[in-house]
Amino acid sequence: MIKRIAFEVKRETKIPVFARDVERVLSVLMVNGDFWEIVRYSMVPLPAVAAMIKLLKEEGWVDYEGERIVLTEKGKKESGALGISPYRSHKCDKCGGKTVLLDDFNDVYQEFLKIQEKRPAALHRYDQGYVTPETTIARVVFADSRGDLRNKEIIVLGDDDLVGIALALTGMPKRVVVIDIDKRILDFERKIKEEKKLDLLDVKRVDLREPLSDELLGKFDVFFTDPTETLAGFRAFACRGVATLKGPGCAGYVGLTHIETSLTKWREIQRFIVETGLVITDIINEFNEYINWPYFKDMRGWELNPVKNMPKGIWYVSALYRLETLEGFQRWNEPLPEDIYEDEESSTV
Amino acid sequence: MIKRIAFEVKRETKIPVFARDVERVLSVLMVNGDFWEIVRYSMVPLPAVAAMIKLLKEEGWVDYEGERIVLTEKGKKESGALGISPYRSHKCDKCGGKTVLLDDFNDVYQEFLKIQEKRPAALHRYDQGYVTPETTIARVVFADSRGDLRNKEIIVLGDDDLVGIALALTGMPKRVVVIDIDKRILDFERKIKEEKKLDLLDVKRVDLREPLSDELLGKFDVFFTDPTETLAGFRAFACRGVATLKGPGCAGYVGLTHIETSLTKWREIQRFIVETGLVITDIINEFNEYINWPYFKDMRGWELNPVKNMPKGIWYVSALYRLETLEGFQRWNEPLPEDIYEDEESSTV
Repeated sequence: MIKRIAFEVKRETKIPVFARDVERVLSVLMVNGDFWEIVRYSMVPLPAVAAMIKLLKEEGWVDYEGERIVLTEKGKKESGALGISPYRSHKCDKCGGKTVLLDDFNDVYQEFLKIQEKRPAALHRYDQGYVTPETTIARVVFADSRGDLRNKEIIVLGDDDLVGIALALTGMPKRVVVIDIDKRILDFERKIKEEKKLDLLDVKRVDLREPLSDELLGKFDVFFTDPTETLAGFRAFACRGVATLKGPGCAGYVGLTHIETSLTKWREIQRFIVETGLVITDIINEFNEYINWPYFKDMRGWELNPVKNMPKGIWYVSALYRLETLEGFQRWNEPLPEDIYEDEESSTV
Repeated sequence: MIKRIAFEVKRETKIPVFARDVERVLSVLMVNGDFWEIVRYSMVPLPAVAAMIKLLKEEGWVDYEGERIVLTEKGKKESGALGISPYRSHKCDKCGGKTVLLDDFNDVYQEFLKIQEKRPAALHRYDQGYVTPETTIARVVFADSRGDLRNKEIIVLGDDDLVGIALALTGMPKRVVVIDIDKRILDFERKIKEEKKLDLLDVKRVDLREPLSDELLGKFDVFFTDPTETLAGFRAFACRGVATLKGPGCAGYVGLTHIETSLTKWREIQRFIVETGLVITDIINEFNEYINWPYFKDMRGWELNPVKNMPKGIWYVSALYRLETLEGFQRWNEPLPEDIYEDEESSTV
């Protein structure tokens, strides 16, 4: 039965899902009736979860009670008979599963909290959606624990998360360059740079679909980026990031979700990373937590939600990947296609 | 200068190291003079660290003060001029960077602590060396958070860590099969099985160099293994593990160090994982912490230690990898070569 559901979801959505993914969704449904939280904790792409819930309703396994999605008696019995167990997280309540603590950067965190209050709103047009201030600082802390902060030349490709500001506030990198296509973000960061006298920070308007200029190619020790998760989008951000690195032993930080990217596409991305001559040194799930964005109701994920409820808390999360360059890695710098924002697995378009 | 050191270390040890690795070692040397801890925190293979320290001594950058390895004034000045900063960890002090807490499994942990007191000593012959009891339970907890414990059929390939016992003590899997070549471990686990009436636990003597029998092939949802870290050894354990899995959506847990495996070899292993049709879902560094083993002074790592001090605490750690099978993954079950335990990067042989 769950194999058939998986098969039908795959046929309908073109997203490769397996019986295990149906199991994951049922497992969360046993303890949680909120659509957004089912998406978060099942780690299954949103369009697949939505299709799965509709099919499970047709089979009489789930029902809608107002804004909640609940297992019916039949659904409970059948899930139990299949040996499916309620979802449990044992996540550390101190670091939130991020592995690091912010304590040593508390001053920077407090200052950043104030600065970010007036940040530009996330724009649909550029697939923006920013992480919590805590996540931004946690990235900086994690980078420091890997030796990727102090005296390093760091570039941030697309910075609605304001990582560039946080990096600069520590005063520790040799220099920080932020490139973005969005003038509002560049203006905001320029203003902060002046107010806080962040001389090590530089801000430039760059369209990542165009090849990088010589002043950026091969000039950095570390890059940060939170790519759009189509394959084309991932390539745009990650390839450009890799192309900015100086040589072997340089690092890249990238976010990747399960919400917009199936495990099969995760593997394609991992293959691409390895074939580009990099190694993956860390993958920490749910490291990045995003604040819900204002264009929420215009996106495909809202349309797909069968009960149309608003999320109560953070539901959109991504894994932190740390990559490192090895001998012979490739700096790829060709023009990219116009539309990098949409494929069948994406739900925030 | 550090490029030249890296080049010479590479020529001498055949281990691919880069200037960044010399930087990592110098960074730890700024705060720590213990050989074993330099190895742990630098995340550079032990033989490369040893060769590097000898070269740095020849250059007058480091000196030996009894059992400690210290930066000389010249070493401090040169490191500072290169912009190298002291190593900092910001690791969470509650979960130890493992991301999960053991609280929900505290009863199992307490019982396991008692049981493991009389475990067999680690044997050089089989490249044994077991993790702390806390690590064993943390693996079980982590697996539960990924839905890989309850009602699952689980196999453990090589079990000096006693993961099979811990899994069985939870009473949650459908069944647990432990295979090992070491009769002492099998006898120990059989005794515990009887004493504690762990009916779900089965224990079998298997030499992983031989192809797996039909009763093990394709019969499990989850495997655990802590492979010997030569490429041949990794293949022996990981391939056999993968071959026991039922289909897509099954999981494997594998440990991998930086102590015996360079990032270049990490990448080879990642390439192999991806090409076998699996995806890497998690990489958590320093998750696995090992108790020092009795044959410590017979191994290559001891011989390479320039100051021959005993480790004071835990120094041998490894990253936890979680792998998941996708459509079309390969079950490889050929005979393996006799010697899987040694290559140029290994230090525990």
